[in-house]
Amino acid sequence: MSQTPAPGDRIRVDRAGRTYEGVLLPSSTDEHVVVKLEGGYNVGIDREEADLEVLAEDVYDVEGAQAESDASSESEIEFDEDLPTIALISTGGTIASTVDYRTGAVTAQFDAEDVLRAVPDLAGRANYRGRVVANILSENMEPPIWQDLAEAVAEEIEDGADGVVVMHGTDTMQYSASALAFMLETPVPVVFTGSQRSADRPSSDNVMNAVCAVEAAKSDCAEVLVCMHASESDTTCALHRGTRVRKNHTSRRDAFETVGAEPVGEVDYDDETVSFQGKYRERDAVDLAVEADLEEDVELVKFTPGMDPAFLDVAAESSGLVLEGTGLGHVHTDLIPKVEELVEEGTTVVVTSQCLEGRVCDRVYDTGRDLLAAGVLEGEDMLPGTAKVKLMWALANADDLEEAMRTSLAGEIQERSVSWESQR
Amino acid sequence: MSQTPAPGDRIRVDRAGRTYEGVLLPSSTDEHVVVKLEGGYNVGIDREEADLEVLAEDVYDVEGAQAESDASSESEIEFDEDLPTIALISTGGTIASTVDYRTGAVTAQFDAEDVLRAVPDLAGRANYRGRVVANILSENMEPPIWQDLAEAVAEEIEDGADGVVVMHGTDTMQYSASALAFMLETPVPVVFTGSQRSADRPSSDNVMNAVCAVEAAKSDCAEVLVCMHASESDTTCALHRGTRVRKNHTSRRDAFETVGAEPVGEVDYDDETVSFQGKYRERDAVDLAVEADLEEDVELVKFTPGMDPAFLDVAAESSGLVLEGTGLGHVHTDLIPKVEELVEEGTTVVVTSQCLEGRVCDRVYDTGRDLLAAGVLEGEDMLPGTAKVKLMWALANADDLEEAMRTSLAGEIQERSVSWESQR
Repeated sequence: MSQTPAPGDRIRVDRAGRTYEGVLLPSSTDEHVVVKLEGGYNVGIDREEADLEVLAEDVYDVEGAQAESDASSESEIEFDEDLPTIALISTGGTIASTVDYRTGAVTAQFDAEDVLRAVPDLAGRANYRGRVVANILSENMEPPIWQDLAEAVAEEIEDGADGVVVMHGTDTMQYSASALAFMLETPVPVVFTGSQRSADRPSSDNVMNAVCAVEAAKSDCAEVLVCMHASESDTTCALHRGTRVRKNHTSRRDAFETVGAEPVGEVDYDDETVSFQGKYRERDAVDLAVEADLEEDVELVKFTPGMDPAFLDVAAESSGLVLEGTGLGHVHTDLIPKVEELVEEGTTVVVTSQCLEGRVCDRVYDTGRDLLAAGVLEGEDMLPGTAKVKLMWALANADDLEEAMRTSLAGEIQERSVSWESQR
Repeated sequence: MSQTPAPGDRIRVDRAGRTYEGVLLPSSTDEHVVVKLEGGYNVGIDREEADLEVLAEDVYDVEGAQAESDASSESEIEFDEDLPTIALISTGGTIASTVDYRTGAVTAQFDAEDVLRAVPDLAGRANYRGRVVANILSENMEPPIWQDLAEAVAEEIEDGADGVVVMHGTDTMQYSASALAFMLETPVPVVFTGSQRSADRPSSDNVMNAVCAVEAAKSDCAEVLVCMHASESDTTCALHRGTRVRKNHTSRRDAFETVGAEPVGEVDYDDETVSFQGKYRERDAVDLAVEADLEEDVELVKFTPGMDPAFLDVAAESSGLVLEGTGLGHVHTDLIPKVEELVEEGTTVVVTSQCLEGRVCDRVYDTGRDLLAAGVLEGEDMLPGTAKVKLMWALANADDLEEAMRTSLAGEIQERSVSWESQR
């Protein structure tokens, strides 16, 4: 390294054969180098493993950007005791990159000023507390960060937040929302939101999603929800139960859908009203509790014709395995002896369906009955991804694992009102 | 074995630690023992590996059942030269079990009489030829049977069939339909159909699906289609393109849906009319051709948070790997060096999305760009299962693999009319 790089310098970083170029940002820790890449994203790199080279000095006025943003927002942060307090927790993703983009070089700092500067429409709706748990693209989300996130949400609630908004990348939002739904008993709403289009695009959904998420976080539904565009137009956000939501489109703004049920409710963007349908857990119905332990050693295997049985060998060392089978919950007959071995050696195997909608029922066909005889648990109508998260949680927390897996803990299993059997 | 079992005997068969009890059926080959199980399904067991025991002699009048069924149908099989000829090919599944159920002990025999006896409503619509390629639950479908099926369909067309109906279990129908769509250039319709509810249930869909499939096979659309209930009512069947269809519900009769597009057409059950929307390949537009080679050594891995990287090691020996990533086509950054190794060692890696709808685009975010730099191919808007089948086919048949994977060969990739970029 020719010279010690300072925040604002344009640098090149080499780590493990990969090269990054961008602006060095101030970092809140000594362990990481944080680089603002050209696409607007920040990447954190372990300082010990990184090889840094300064390409140009002082190309970006980090302190100026920070000072300017501090100055412009002073009048906006007065506490209004007539308004509820909403904690905004950032984990990264497109919606958080928005914040980066508008405020300049914010990394692990994210406060009420940043929030209001990024989305001025949030002003006057609540008092805000900002908090950063991670700053990652959500495909890089990992179970330990779910645990950090659950603890952070619990702390904010303990500290008096009347609702929590979690800003999260859309790729794995459904998995994180499921994790928090199992980990938390919450007396206030915990609302995930994100953005399918970044703020520099005319079609960005970030402002409406953030505003609607705050309104939902002020509402009466004390569940873990996902708040995203309900249609391609800017009129309504849907509120999805965290355990039943799925990103069903790669790019549309209304990509998120509740699978096999109706959304819990919706937020009207014009009227600023929140409405619910069906049953939900009301505000203050339970005391705050957090059980964030996870058994991380759980795998998901999707069965397709011609699948190599060796995928099941990978799961042989695992505590849990979710099979994403076909139809009512099937795999090829030839795989069943291997499934039986896994069960005998202590792996909990849960069968779900790649159909996504509808209930698994392994009592109808021979392959299903053979799977039951091999000792698998039926995943009812749980989404496969939700079943994986639940199995991680239940292996670490449930007194009776089988009972926990067949019982709805957070809306992940629906009642058998339109079950397979009743449709004869 | 205490005595040589004869057709009609109740027997027990042990094979590889698994025991089957049922009635021994006449078999068309010496290689397999065929047993009619209590659930009504037939299982074929390799004779060399099977250990047979007679439990009771002559419990079932196989010949009588056959003779009776032969006698009752004689008047129904006269060739009507004013009607088209439709080949009905059975592979098993619920719809084929229907045929077993009504005709008695039919195994590898399946002819025009059996068809009409099972579904009398088919009479007068066509001259029929029956053929059995397999008699399995479709979760046991394997790539070599796709090849047998493609060859059988081609033979029937060569022999003058004006259309082909393939009766198939619903679990993996979409994979088989995709396989035939890539393997066949067909001048006539090839229509897959099945049943979500067996014939002994009041809500069975088998008659309407079979009738509509025959009508579709007589139509002008010379593509590989899937014909199943369009709604829960018995009014209309939808015609789905084989490469874009998906079983989206475990049990509903309208479980099959075209993903990310509209169905090719529909069959009105009352009017017996077939209608199409949009472009399709017309009857006799191409000469019959079959390219049934497959590279079977292709895997599909669905990425979820916390995934064990060892799943990628399983694919290290494979010719092809389809990644079912998140969002626009992502996996955790930490997996990318391993993906790069796979590519360097000769595995073709295609990225698709577990969102199912929408197009993969790996140029937007860092993880995507890193995947592209690692040498993956973008799977466009192909369904992950279809991408796996296509990669098997393209590895064995395409002159330019990359070109084949990014070009729509059988409707599996849609034009970029509403692409990610155009929605700014």
